[in-house]
Amino acid sequence: MRPASASIGPVSSAEEDRAKGSKTAGSDFLLLDIGQAPPRGRTEWLTSRIRSAIADGTLPVGSRLPAGRVLAAELRVSRGLVTEVYQRLADAGQVAGRGRAGTVVVAAPAPASAPSRAPEGPAVPADPFAPRPGAALVDALRSVPCRIDLSPGVPDLTAFPRTAWLQAERRVLAGLTPADFGYGDPQGTPALREAVVGWLARNRGIRADPGEVVVVSGVAQALALLAPVLRGSGVRRVAVEDPGSLGARRQLEYGRLETVPVRVDAAGVDVAALAGSGAAAALLTPAHQFPTGVVLDGERRRELLAWAAGGGVVIEDDYDAEHRYDRAPVPALRALLPEAVCYAGSVSKLLAPALRLGWLLVPPRLLDAVVAQKRYADLGSPVLAQLVLARLMDSGELERHLRFVRRRHRRRRDAMLRAIAAALPGARVHGAAAGLHLMVTFDSAGFEDTALASAALALGVKAHPLSWHRVAPGAPGLVLGYAAGPVGDVEEGIALLGKALRQVT
Amino acid sequence: MRPASASIGPVSSAEEDRAKGSKTAGSDFLLLDIGQAPPRGRTEWLTSRIRSAIADGTLPVGSRLPAGRVLAAELRVSRGLVTEVYQRLADAGQVAGRGRAGTVVVAAPAPASAPSRAPEGPAVPADPFAPRPGAALVDALRSVPCRIDLSPGVPDLTAFPRTAWLQAERRVLAGLTPADFGYGDPQGTPALREAVVGWLARNRGIRADPGEVVVVSGVAQALALLAPVLRGSGVRRVAVEDPGSLGARRQLEYGRLETVPVRVDAAGVDVAALAGSGAAAALLTPAHQFPTGVVLDGERRRELLAWAAGGGVVIEDDYDAEHRYDRAPVPALRALLPEAVCYAGSVSKLLAPALRLGWLLVPPRLLDAVVAQKRYADLGSPVLAQLVLARLMDSGELERHLRFVRRRHRRRRDAMLRAIAAALPGARVHGAAAGLHLMVTFDSAGFEDTALASAALALGVKAHPLSWHRVAPGAPGLVLGYAAGPVGDVEEGIALLGKALRQVT
Repeated sequence: MRPASASIGPVSSAEEDRAKGSKTAGSDFLLLDIGQAPPRGRTEWLTSRIRSAIADGTLPVGSRLPAGRVLAAELRVSRGLVTEVYQRLADAGQVAGRGRAGTVVVAAPAPASAPSRAPEGPAVPADPFAPRPGAALVDALRSVPCRIDLSPGVPDLTAFPRTAWLQAERRVLAGLTPADFGYGDPQGTPALREAVVGWLARNRGIRADPGEVVVVSGVAQALALLAPVLRGSGVRRVAVEDPGSLGARRQLEYGRLETVPVRVDAAGVDVAALAGSGAAAALLTPAHQFPTGVVLDGERRRELLAWAAGGGVVIEDDYDAEHRYDRAPVPALRALLPEAVCYAGSVSKLLAPALRLGWLLVPPRLLDAVVAQKRYADLGSPVLAQLVLARLMDSGELERHLRFVRRRHRRRRDAMLRAIAAALPGARVHGAAAGLHLMVTFDSAGFEDTALASAALALGVKAHPLSWHRVAPGAPGLVLGYAAGPVGDVEEGIALLGKALRQVT
Repeated sequence: MRPASASIGPVSSAEEDRAKGSKTAGSDFLLLDIGQAPPRGRTEWLTSRIRSAIADGTLPVGSRLPAGRVLAAELRVSRGLVTEVYQRLADAGQVAGRGRAGTVVVAAPAPASAPSRAPEGPAVPADPFAPRPGAALVDALRSVPCRIDLSPGVPDLTAFPRTAWLQAERRVLAGLTPADFGYGDPQGTPALREAVVGWLARNRGIRADPGEVVVVSGVAQALALLAPVLRGSGVRRVAVEDPGSLGARRQLEYGRLETVPVRVDAAGVDVAALAGSGAAAALLTPAHQFPTGVVLDGERRRELLAWAAGGGVVIEDDYDAEHRYDRAPVPALRALLPEAVCYAGSVSKLLAPALRLGWLLVPPRLLDAVVAQKRYADLGSPVLAQLVLARLMDSGELERHLRFVRRRHRRRRDAMLRAIAAALPGARVHGAAAGLHLMVTFDSAGFEDTALASAALALGVKAHPLSWHRVAPGAPGLVLGYAAGPVGDVEEGIALLGKALRQVT
């Protein structure tokens, strides 16, 4: 049997067409061949064909659909099927019954609009180092392809413990109750908050209670949650270290807090200057200052204690303190100052940034407000990954992983130090005793470090110009991550930086 | 050989003690027995013992540590080891060299403070229905234990496709490059944005480009991201449906937007009232209004189109539109109005709320601002889960799952309808043709629905009083989820609601 078919279009022409017995009714008309419809999906098929015809202008607004009984007869389908199709189109607001005028097209669905941006990510400026850097530009630099990436802050991601992660997840999934798949506690799953407390006690000298832990998606989110809470408690200005993390500074400013740069010297942030800055809070990296690598010394810690006793709030970004090569990590400020310190850490440098998991310890007086912010932000972090991480922490797997990557990172650091000595004469190295990056400065002020970073990028090597992370002017320099790639890449990258340096000096 | 040992404490007493040759030097003193130290961890051991002694007051601030050479001799360890230990304590700000006065304790680490809140979650009020409800109270109700949970908005979580999820994750992990473990695109991984576009085309009649999709952690985060963007474009008042979702209303208010309730009738939200409200934006649930279940009809859709043409912004919360039992889902408003609609959906009702994954389609003029907000909020959603979801969407697994749970949900809905007819005479049922919940109202206004919900909770059944989701007063009622539990629970829950109703009327 020949499948029934019908062409529909603006009614007058369709009538004409049918009169001519033409199946291919010209470009103005939609040819319907019911033989194309899946046997149990004719309603969907017919709805979608008519909707497409409306969308592409074949059936423009104002045109009339054939009467239901006519179309049903032509297509040899039931009258009810066509009625249902017209009803769906009416529900969607695309057609409307107009009494004796029949069913008329009243609105077109939109064609797929042209993409306003490429799906691959944000637009990349020709030279990412040319403008004053913002958060989007760090993303932009990240998305630039390059041969060797010496950006700071990324651990050895080839070492991600895929098997351990998957095994832990299998066990977690097997043990979950249906309720565990529901909305969780916005503060974080109790299992992870307990595991974090154990981790911080073993690795960071912190004694805390699971009730003080808020699970967050990383230090960036910790700052985003704290900003309105600090504002709510009257804080308007937050001191930041200079040099200091560009991203963290931008994060606070996005949270409508004014940032006040305070100089960092060989003993860490200048607490006397901090105290004189008028800032009611300070964002600090005491264990391994970013980007200088300086440790906040004992004297400064005591000065900070006195400042905090006067009401100052410290936000401690403990971003890579577990990675220390010369001795045990320096204890966290939070261990000394639980009432004044908001302590933030994450797995970004322990496992992978892509996991988006971290923790925030909050003094009791701020806790409810921070949890309310977290609830508002996203109702809590994803539960599965929280439980997998808890299992890796509790089983000792994460500590094993840390010991493993620490050895690899150390070899890569050593390789970078040797390569710098060979290829970047005149470069002074800072902060190489810990972390995933080091800093170099150049005493000769005869060039801009953005020009150096730009020349390096042209040679296929990515690095952060130190000036990105400075507010007050200072010697040109680079912030160089050594952890992400193999020793050979580190060596080649530094050699190419040497070439770039010769180009700009 | 007897392990060397030494007791240290405030120096004068320690000297005294050693003079007496006493090992158990009284409660004021710390007994150090080097035999307890692990052979390769003596430095850590000694540091931690002294730190503990400082923390618990055995070595109060102001007390002096023994000279390094003395302690080294007593413990039969190297002088260097003790020097390193004192250095660590000095770095941590706990001791300081005081010249001829020796090394003095200057600050104590904090003892673990008492928990300010129980780790299990937020405090539960005696009767969660007594106060005016806020977001925290919905959490509180969620955390109350009960036998039968008829809260709305939760799918059948026993059906979560654990095996399919784990298999997809194994394949994803096997295929990831190290770069994939790094910081991702804050807008969302391209693979998921493409998969979402396909899902929305197949299931919601939406034609979009991956460049228009922002991956979010759910509709709550979508609203949190939109709030500052809308404020930035001058919006101060947002119309919300009344009745309408309490959570969504609170979410907007948390985002510093004023909400204006607009009545919902049998045709959906009253667009004329919306147009007269002075609101520049409207948060709507057109496909299956929450909580009434009404579908926004064709005429109202056209009115809304006219309102949007005048500059109004629609936020379409398409929270459970895939769950329709009588016919194909009603197409999304976004399909008609891409320039004016911010469209939000999530997997919370498709798979599980615990995953915290969703999507937001944004008109091009707002896109950059929304992506900037997402970057600020959390630097992007976790990558692994995004890739797993993309795979489940692309493979057809998610559609299979949806068909499977739809059958189960439908049986449970039918059971609830029968049980209501039997146990709640006089209850009028609304919105049962779709979704995961229905609404009942009672014409008799002789009781408060919060009293009914409270009585039900006392009998072990959880349900939302309709008044929680109303602004203007109206008939008492309940919002009843039927999808989460088995048919037997649904039947028993409704029978107990009948008992509760008899108690309050």
